[in-house]
Amino acid sequence: MARRRTVDEHAARIAALVGPTLARRESEQVPLAAALGRVASEPVVTSGPLPPFRNAQMDGYAARADDVRRAPVVLPVDGVVPAAASEGTVLQPGHLLKVMTGAPVPDGADCIVPVEQTAEEDGGVRVLRTVERGAFVRDAGSDALPGTVVVPAHTRLAPRHLAAAAAAGVAEVAVRRRPRVAVLATGAEVVPPGAPLALGQIHDVNGVALSSLAVEAGAEAVLVDLTPDDPAAFEQALQRAVAVADLVVTAGGVSKGDFEVVRQVLEPLGADVTEIAMQPGGPQGTASVRGVPVVCLPGNPVSAAVSFTVFLRPLLRAAVGLPPVLPQSMPLAAALHSPKGKRQWLRGVVKDGTVHPVGGPGSHLIVAMAGADALIDVPEEVDFVATGDTVSVLPL
Amino acid sequence: MARRRTVDEHAARIAALVGPTLARRESEQVPLAAALGRVASEPVVTSGPLPPFRNAQMDGYAARADDVRRAPVVLPVDGVVPAAASEGTVLQPGHLLKVMTGAPVPDGADCIVPVEQTAEEDGGVRVLRTVERGAFVRDAGSDALPGTVVVPAHTRLAPRHLAAAAAAGVAEVAVRRRPRVAVLATGAEVVPPGAPLALGQIHDVNGVALSSLAVEAGAEAVLVDLTPDDPAAFEQALQRAVAVADLVVTAGGVSKGDFEVVRQVLEPLGADVTEIAMQPGGPQGTASVRGVPVVCLPGNPVSAAVSFTVFLRPLLRAAVGLPPVLPQSMPLAAALHSPKGKRQWLRGVVKDGTVHPVGGPGSHLIVAMAGADALIDVPEEVDFVATGDTVSVLPL
Repeated sequence: MARRRTVDEHAARIAALVGPTLARRESEQVPLAAALGRVASEPVVTSGPLPPFRNAQMDGYAARADDVRRAPVVLPVDGVVPAAASEGTVLQPGHLLKVMTGAPVPDGADCIVPVEQTAEEDGGVRVLRTVERGAFVRDAGSDALPGTVVVPAHTRLAPRHLAAAAAAGVAEVAVRRRPRVAVLATGAEVVPPGAPLALGQIHDVNGVALSSLAVEAGAEAVLVDLTPDDPAAFEQALQRAVAVADLVVTAGGVSKGDFEVVRQVLEPLGADVTEIAMQPGGPQGTASVRGVPVVCLPGNPVSAAVSFTVFLRPLLRAAVGLPPVLPQSMPLAAALHSPKGKRQWLRGVVKDGTVHPVGGPGSHLIVAMAGADALIDVPEEVDFVATGDTVSVLPL
Repeated sequence: MARRRTVDEHAARIAALVGPTLARRESEQVPLAAALGRVASEPVVTSGPLPPFRNAQMDGYAARADDVRRAPVVLPVDGVVPAAASEGTVLQPGHLLKVMTGAPVPDGADCIVPVEQTAEEDGGVRVLRTVERGAFVRDAGSDALPGTVVVPAHTRLAPRHLAAAAAAGVAEVAVRRRPRVAVLATGAEVVPPGAPLALGQIHDVNGVALSSLAVEAGAEAVLVDLTPDDPAAFEQALQRAVAVADLVVTAGGVSKGDFEVVRQVLEPLGADVTEIAMQPGGPQGTASVRGVPVVCLPGNPVSAAVSFTVFLRPLLRAAVGLPPVLPQSMPLAAALHSPKGKRQWLRGVVKDGTVHPVGGPGSHLIVAMAGADALIDVPEEVDFVATGDTVSVLPL
């Protein structure tokens, strides 16, 4: 038997195929309210200073520091500068102007006397304490000068970045388009979720699982299709998919059976389908159809989900600026066996800093996988790991 | 001056007001494709066994272990059981039936001989090795028996949970409705994002920032409004908000100035507005309008965002099943001063296991906050923290 391709070799092949396409995604303008979690494709720059004008940090009185140097002192109040002041106001020497937080500091004033440090009196306001020049005054541009990058390009936009963009007077931001993923599930025995089952039929799991894995990794699921084992039907679905997607993910139809529709359609188009030395995993493939990368996963839902997680999740997350999900080392809570020559990704549950295998290696154990939160990564050459030995664990 | 309310006291007050409303949210049915990240309100139960029928784990030949005990042995092949077999098939003693992965194991067969352990010959197939009874057969119900809870109630639905629900034949799941949050920004000087600024005007930041903080915490932003400092306009917006939201968040209008529209409208309705011993923070309030909790945050965008993060983020995340964002202890990279009597939440950047204060305490420093990724929590009674001292840090 020919040497099977390793996980790392196949991962490199998929990265070489998919990476350039994901990197080519154009940008689009979206309103701030729709930009949460998107990745800025251009820096957001403020054209004016922030704050845009010199303003009061406290409710109180705009004053000259020279006039309140000999506090306590009573000064006349000439009126109020509301926060919405639409025109410049001038403070006369020896006077005060009442001012609310955020309102423009009038010309001539150089400090704000907080209202708590004053007392109302006949003929004006008593300033109880001296105030330094500049006190409680926010200068224009003290947060950002004109031309400042308030959100760098490639930032994954959190609420605080949208806040800075809004402050800069921006209503829309340029973000990278989300990767568009199409999922093509196959299988004559497979029926849509919720449909009644005849003998020998099962419900489609891959359509929902792979599209939601794609969405969780920051992509957009633009098409989810299920075709029976009919080459013409699959070919049609494939053409629809490559017309709308940056990446097509197929499930099933690539093993050694007699009804392997994905292999039948894609191999004439130059697909590379081969056995990967992993469990769950088995035969997998890659192709390029009309310039769109196609990644062919096994049909078994556990195999497909694990393969997506191992091969595609890192690429999608990187493309949308999500942090990588890093493997963690921890002790194994219960000994396990593993097939030699295959890298096993066994489902596990992390608890109190150790990982417990759950459900066994069977790739039909979909419910068991739902109860797992991690994959235990057992290297190819290892066939047994003892309780307490350190293993590498990939969070789901 | 009256003692200011502490952060913990105010947090408890908000939790008591908001918690019961969030807990009362009804559930809704959503298709699996729309359920990612939602919280199951009921368990998902499989009515049938999973897998639904006994099926082959490998491509190969259905056989009786007794017939292949004396391998190598050549046996006749009676045909093929495709994966989509629509009727029960019976294996004759001393014969084989070809079978694909996932296809029903025919009655009479008790093991699968993998195709790799066979060779085609005239008159049949040579089985090269003995195979144990049950080998490569997945029994019906071996993943889950009828009645099994495949997704427990209160699970935040990840792709693997949707996979298990799909396998169980479910097309829709019952999830808790997302908390509906309305954001009412106020301020006569405040104009919508992107609008041109006259002197004394600033762009609204709170509408975008607070609604996206709500969405990030798992809520739905059902209404974002901006009203000038006009009590009638605010009253109208408030009535619209309480008609559609589980929680109304206001920004601004609660301090001691002369144009404090939120206070003016809500205090006659029994609002509690008081000074909180925090920086940024200042006066904040709570109210209940037609049974809907209203949380009044300061108008300053940094104060509002920090207050949302401290008071509302934990409640929303808990309500939608998101894990809490836990504070972390780490050394401070540069000494800081803090006002005594106020709990300060200074913006910081975590780098190499230490936290660096950024931008100073000014609550107008919106751009500086965009560059931060954490809040440094300085207790009320502390007025100085030295370089290298351990501080508590709340990730943003």
